[in-house]
Parts: sequence; structure tokens; C-alpha cells
Amino acid sequence: MSSGEDSLIVRYLKPLATDPGAFGLVDDAAVLKAAGDDIVVTTDAVVEGVHFLPQDPPDTIARKALRVNLSDLAAKGAAPAGFVLTLALRDADDAWLEPFARGLGEDARLFGCPLLGGDTVSTPGPLMISITAFGRVPAGRMVHRSGAKPGDRVVVTGTIGDAALGLGILKGGAAATALAGDAAAREMLAGRYRVPQPRNALAKAVRDHAHAAIDVSDGLAGDLAKLCGASGVSAVIDAPSIPLSAATAALLARGTVGIETIVSGGDDYEILCAIPEDSFEAFVQAAGQAGVAVTSIGMVVAGSSVPRFLDGEGAELALPRLSYSHF
Amino acid sequence: MSSGEDSLIVRYLKPLATDPGAFGLVDDAAVLKAAGDDIVVTTDAVVEGVHFLPQDPPDTIARKALRVNLSDLAAKGAAPAGFVLTLALRDADDAWLEPFARGLGEDARLFGCPLLGGDTVSTPGPLMISITAFGRVPAGRMVHRSGAKPGDRVVVTGTIGDAALGLGILKGGAAATALAGDAAAREMLAGRYRVPQPRNALAKAVRDHAHAAIDVSDGLAGDLAKLCGASGVSAVIDAPSIPLSAATAALLARGTVGIETIVSGGDDYEILCAIPEDSFEAFVQAAGQAGVAVTSIGMVVAGSSVPRFLDGEGAELALPRLSYSHF
Repeated sequence: MSSGEDSLIVRYLKPLATDPGAFGLVDDAAVLKAAGDDIVVTTDAVVEGVHFLPQDPPDTIARKALRVNLSDLAAKGAAPAGFVLTLALRDADDAWLEPFARGLGEDARLFGCPLLGGDTVSTPGPLMISITAFGRVPAGRMVHRSGAKPGDRVVVTGTIGDAALGLGILKGGAAATALAGDAAAREMLAGRYRVPQPRNALAKAVRDHAHAAIDVSDGLAGDLAKLCGASGVSAVIDAPSIPLSAATAALLARGTVGIETIVSGGDDYEILCAIPEDSFEAFVQAAGQAGVAVTSIGMVVAGSSVPRFLDGEGAELALPRLSYSHF
Repeated sequence: MSSGEDSLIVRYLKPLATDPGAFGLVDDAAVLKAAGDDIVVTTDAVVEGVHFLPQDPPDTIARKALRVNLSDLAAKGAAPAGFVLTLALRDADDAWLEPFARGLGEDARLFGCPLLGGDTVSTPGPLMISITAFGRVPAGRMVHRSGAKPGDRVVVTGTIGDAALGLGILKGGAAATALAGDAAAREMLAGRYRVPQPRNALAKAVRDHAHAAIDVSDGLAGDLAKLCGASGVSAVIDAPSIPLSAATAALLARGTVGIETIVSGGDDYEILCAIPEDSFEAFVQAAGQAGVAVTSIGMVVAGSSVPRFLDGEGAELALPRLSYSHF
């Protein structure tokens, strides 16, 4: 980096580097003090045209880039400790950078996850933001994808499917037409796509009670299959129990969208976890105190088959695909 | 991620995830155990057409992406502990991925820096590889850019300018013409551009002896100015003392390249450090044991002006630019 890059960093990013280990972004590296904890490391990138739309507001792009990583930390039971940022830009455009840095800074404060360092590079291609986020857990206490046991409840936070419908609305799809008269519902769903609500408030409860957990980023069905695969188990899901927002429930009832889109759409950034039956009540209570809605949607069962989703009559739903794939 | 992405990760990247904290890349996050040390964090991205050329061999692209980060760890006095990788690809091309992963794996082993996790995303644009690397130092012992004191020697490892000339050769510039009859020299210089030689073997000596250090990534002149700026000092450099390879020295002697290109070209990935006079002999001895050539090229002086580069007659060189800037 040099002149133009330096002034960009000083102007927009240095104010976010509030941790002493960031050294005000004037050094080549940051220091993370573990203080006896394990450092949990996760990395997720967002690419213009793939993970966000070119016309998305810059502050929501920043928030999404950070929040998809915060969501991983939450599912692993970790408290946020900081992040590093790689920003690939076509040019240093103040009109884009100012709201981007403002949104990023607001979320860094909101989630207690300060900027520790980064790299700013030019690209002739799409904007790309890659974030590596750090969290802390007491030694040996990270929650894994593996560990789910037959008899555990399958529990999910928040609501599922909103973000996939929000993307459909922003792209002018069938959901946009169906909700032409309901600006508030369109806005809510688009907002769920643009600005996920990571469940960091639930991290301690997940750590205290879950046998296994994953964040739902690529689709409920696919991410459940990953959790089950890593745990060597299967699961049976009662599809009508899957928590839906009013807008998504209405679109499902009208037939605008099928349940298979809802469970495989991705971008939910909710926590999916396996809670042993004897901890379920305590988990629900802890979630209530954390202000996070949780819903039991099925059971972990023995076996190695792909998890089954049953409709209200107990018939298995056909899911043509489980989740989003980049390749 | 999903199917195509999963198989890409299992096939090419999982073999690199040798650290127990990587959990074989089957989880959403890795665990880094600090064990009382400070964790040093650095991040650097390389973009096709900006940091490497589209026709560069995939294994050298991988090595460069990792080594530019290892170079930062070396300059901070840190021992490599692992890295996470964000890979933005246009498609999952085995003919490219196989040598890329092989080169990355060889360097991960060579430098003791295993893959801990990552994200693989599709992009319609140029290839981009963003790496966040982790190192360990005893608590409070990271070497900073700040800390250089008047009277310290300015010391640099290896040779300067080769990579900038190597890039010129790969682009068919004047150096290519001048070295038309010397394939070995062309190869050596291009190799210095494509595969930097990070000085991790010197990390402990830097930690034990340097008041301040930085790796030379954007150009000797610019990076020295940054070290001096952070330290609140200036420096005087004896340009004829700057260590050059035989090929670079010959091109300088013939007038194919000027000294200003050599000191501002960048991509050297050598360590530049300030060594107090009374530690210099011990530092040279430690460097000899580590097998890293070090050269004293000038002195830190009081003041706040941009460091001065003097020619053999003591006249100040005019440097139109200090280093590479992305914007």
C-alpha cells in the first residue's frame, strides 16, 4: 500500500481499529491476546453480483460482510474478539467508502468486534470483501458440527427462508409481483437478505447446551445434512414446524414459493443446533433471556441417510437440491 | 458452500489442513491455541493482473500469496502458526487447482504454516487469493515499525530490486531486451517476482535485536519512510551499499535501469530493520547462523524528513516516487 491507499485507511478504517492490538493500523500486523481462551477463527468472503447486488447500499454490504462471519462465531459458541478485512476495490470512491466504513464501524461497535487490520487492493473486477473474524471460547469449548446424538432435538433460531425471498424480490421475481401491494413485507424480506441478524446473543447458550451447531448460510436442508454428516447421524424434520415470518408464510400459502425454496434458499444466518432433550428447557429459557426466538423443528435419529423433511401428513418432501453451490 | 465446492475443498485443500485445530476443514471455524504467546495476525491479498500475471504458473501464484504473508510475520519477529485462505475463482478448473494446491501445500510444510480454514467463492472477475496468516511471539514481543532510534543501523536482508526487474522482464520491457542473451539471469529475476523468499529464518534474530522492522513489499524507499514515520525519526542511506544481485547490478551499470526503480519498485519481500550499533555484531552472527544475508545500508538519524538516499559522491538522489500505490 502507499499514498492513496494510506489516506483511505487513515480516513475510513483507522476509526474502526479501537482495539489496542490493532496499533491504530500503523503496523504490518495486529496482536491478539488469547488470555487462556481458545481463539476461534472463521473466514467468509462476499463478492459483488454473487453475495450482494451492485445496487445494494454500501453500508448494508459492509454489515453483511461482517455479519456472515459473526454468525459463524455465534454458532461455534464464541464471543467476538475482532476481525481483519481485505477490501478489493475498482477505485477509491469516497461516496461508496464513507457509508461502507460507517456501516462497518457501527456493526463493529454493536457486536464488540473491532477491526484489527487488513489489506486494501485494487481490482479491475467485482468488489470483494473478505473478512477473517476471531472469537474466544474457554479452552476446548468450541461447539462443533459433530456431536449430535440420536434423540437430540433439532432447533433453529429466528425464521427461515426470508433472505432467499428477499433476494427474489430485489431481482424482481414472482415474490415481488405477489407482494406488489405490500411495501413493508417487501422491505422486511429484502432487509433479511441484505442485513442478516447474527445470533451472537445466543452464543453462550449454544456453548452451554448444544451437542452440535452450524449457522444456516447455504440453506437449512444442506446445512442440516452437513451437521448430520459430521455427527454420523440423520434427522427427521417436521416441515410445518419450521419457523416462518408472516410474509414468507403468506407467500407459501399462496403458492408463490414452495417449501423446497424456503429450506434450500440460503442466506438465513440463523443457528441450527442439536439440543439434548434434558437440556431443552434450560436452552429455551437462556434463549428467552438472550432475546432470541428458538424453535424445535425435529429430531436427530440414528442412520446415515440425508435428513428427511416430512409434510403435515407425514409424507416425505422431495428436495431437488439441498443448498446453494458456487461451482 | 456445497457439492462442487465441498469436493474441491476435500480434494485439494483438506490435505493441507494438518493442524489439529483445523478439524480437517469439516467445521465452520478453526481453533488457534495461543499457549501463553501473543498471536500475530496479518492479511494480504493478491489479485490477478495486479499482483500476479494471468500466465503465471498456478503453483507460483499460491506460493506468492502465502509468502507475502509469511514475510510480514518474519519482519514482526513471529514464528508461523497457520493461515486461512479465501479463494475467489471463476470456475473450479482441476488443471489450475491441482498445481495451485500442490504449491501451497509444499510451502505450508516448508514454513511450518498449516492451512486452518477458508472460504471458496465464485467470481466473474479476476482470480483473487486473500490470506490471513497467524504467528506466535512471546507476550509483548512483536517487533513494530516504531522504535527505531537515531544511531541505529539500517539493515536489509537479501538483495533489492530483483522482483521489479523480474516483472519488467515478464512484461517484455527494457530489461528483457538487455538480457536477451542471458536466460539464467532472466529466469532468476522473474523467479524473484513470482516466488518471494520470505526471511522467516531471521525472525528470532529480528525479535532479539531489532528496534523496529518492516518487510519491503512496496519499495525500499517507501517502506523505510513508513518505518521512520512510525518511529519519529529519519534516515540517511548510502545507495551504493544497497545489496544487489549480479544481474541487477549489471543492468544498473549498463543504464538499463536507474537506482530509483530499484529502491521504489517493490515486491522484494526482504526485511528492513533498525539495529542498535551495540547489537549489530550479534545480529550479523545470528543472521549468518540462519543463512540469511544482511547488509548495513545506512543510519537512522533524528528528524522528520523523508529518508535521504545519497550516491557515491554524497549527493542526494531524486526519487520521483517512493513506492507502489494501488490508488
